[in-house]
Amino acid sequence: MKSTIAVDIGSSRMRAGSYTAKSNEPIQYNQIPTRSEGMPIEDRLVNLIESVWPEDYEVKSIAAACPGPLDPLNGIVVAPPNIPEWQYFPLQEFLHSTFNLPAAINKDANLAAYGEWSFGAGKGYSNLIYLTISTGIGGGFIIDDKLLTGNTGFAGEVGHMSVIPQGPVCSCGKEGHLEAIASGPAIVRWVKSRLEDETLLDHFPEGELTAKHISDAAETGNELAIAAYERAGKYIGLVIADLLHIFNTSLVIIGGGVSRAGDLLFNPIRKSVTESVLSDVYLDNLQILPAALGDNSGILGALVLSREIASDLSQ
Amino acid sequence: MKSTIAVDIGSSRMRAGSYTAKSNEPIQYNQIPTRSEGMPIEDRLVNLIESVWPEDYEVKSIAAACPGPLDPLNGIVVAPPNIPEWQYFPLQEFLHSTFNLPAAINKDANLAAYGEWSFGAGKGYSNLIYLTISTGIGGGFIIDDKLLTGNTGFAGEVGHMSVIPQGPVCSCGKEGHLEAIASGPAIVRWVKSRLEDETLLDHFPEGELTAKHISDAAETGNELAIAAYERAGKYIGLVIADLLHIFNTSLVIIGGGVSRAGDLLFNPIRKSVTESVLSDVYLDNLQILPAALGDNSGILGALVLSREIASDLSQ
Repeated sequence: MKSTIAVDIGSSRMRAGSYTAKSNEPIQYNQIPTRSEGMPIEDRLVNLIESVWPEDYEVKSIAAACPGPLDPLNGIVVAPPNIPEWQYFPLQEFLHSTFNLPAAINKDANLAAYGEWSFGAGKGYSNLIYLTISTGIGGGFIIDDKLLTGNTGFAGEVGHMSVIPQGPVCSCGKEGHLEAIASGPAIVRWVKSRLEDETLLDHFPEGELTAKHISDAAETGNELAIAAYERAGKYIGLVIADLLHIFNTSLVIIGGGVSRAGDLLFNPIRKSVTESVLSDVYLDNLQILPAALGDNSGILGALVLSREIASDLSQ
Repeated sequence: MKSTIAVDIGSSRMRAGSYTAKSNEPIQYNQIPTRSEGMPIEDRLVNLIESVWPEDYEVKSIAAACPGPLDPLNGIVVAPPNIPEWQYFPLQEFLHSTFNLPAAINKDANLAAYGEWSFGAGKGYSNLIYLTISTGIGGGFIIDDKLLTGNTGFAGEVGHMSVIPQGPVCSCGKEGHLEAIASGPAIVRWVKSRLEDETLLDHFPEGELTAKHISDAAETGNELAIAAYERAGKYIGLVIADLLHIFNTSLVIIGGGVSRAGDLLFNPIRKSVTESVLSDVYLDNLQILPAALGDNSGILGALVLSREIASDLSQ
């Protein structure tokens, strides 16, 4: 029997699974923290992959989702802000030479879009926009049944679209990008900047304030917390309207940790999109949906890619 | 001998040509003002097309470029701001039934992109971004050797990307769109708003101030005029950077009347793009070029479309 391996590398944890040609239930699955003292990330990655290597199956290929910016055409991790060890790391070649198998890599948001399109909220659509709202903001686009990669593989960086000129400084160093205004850390920063009487902090007296704390506070009616999500949703909606003007898709999928706030985020997004589009033609049959695969969008996208590069997965 | 007809409908003039299957030199060509008292635009259009009907050729198809928003899939002109008579006008069916020939229409900026890609600055590229900076700002995108049309045909509305939240009001009624900041009329409005001592007006004492007057003044060193183009170029560059983050193309073509200002506009655009991109990877091999076909981008794009829908153009 033949199998394929899919990997999803995040800044805090790495996950891997082995799969047959037909089922999305892994034969074996494992996840570990991305980092530990004394061992390089790539060695931990090798251990992780070996831990899901299926005994009774021949493995035919390996594909991995990894934070960008990333060059999928040459298989090089370029400059992931949260994995600074991997500046221009040739991850594809590393996987290929370590395991002597066809290997491929792509940006996490691209493969999450690919996963949602193949098995999730985007199944059956030829065109869709995928956004992930998390520590950062990323995107992936399916156009005419193909992943949009661009000339050198760096397409889809929705988080770095300019929203407020001379606005808050982004993780990339530029000003006013969507990621600097509506990502999880940006939501936290905005709340902190307005915490004059610190009443909100009563809800989480210990530890660091996170977007999840703020969404919990919003659920209990905290006005500042609600305003924080309304503000984030407004700017995400503005960028979605811009993207609809360009792509005119009928489907927008939103995933990532911050999107788990549900209506708290989706309602202001939908309101902002409706208010921001040039014409109602962009709203005809438009759906703005949460990602259906949750945490698995990325690894299942990597699975599709891994199946594509396997020379022969039949039997 | 067989032939095909291409039409370019603008808000001030309409142009038509008849062409063989192989040459872009028209067999016959004519242009007339779009409007005259006492005759509907569609009747003038019919007269124009008849005036270029070639005597010794069988005509096999007609295609027209027309201001948007426009539904190319159903061939309907939806709501062109400068041709208010044509609200939801079924132009494709009108051409088809009037001349009993295959007919097609598309948005002017889409067909200008198509023309530049087929015969102009974009020849040989599989992916490109085309912008037209004129009375309005429009766009067309070639992705994987296909025109991006979107789910219902309304893709490519670059002019209505949001640039300055709560910024100047756009022709569409929304605020802060690129068109409201960097189109010809927007450049004029900005200069007028700053004309405190009216020194600039010495250059054109009569008639209405236009973007051309301002570019002429800039050529003579007028600081306000130079600043107006620098401001427009800065925001156009910001939007181009956003589009590069999404599409990662290596070619951006800029056409339209305002682009004739040349370096006066292109230098601040290039500076702004360089300053605004997330990473230098978006600048690798990037070219930002003026449209090569000048006024003919649109009609030659319509020609490509007309040839595509002709059943048989050989001989």
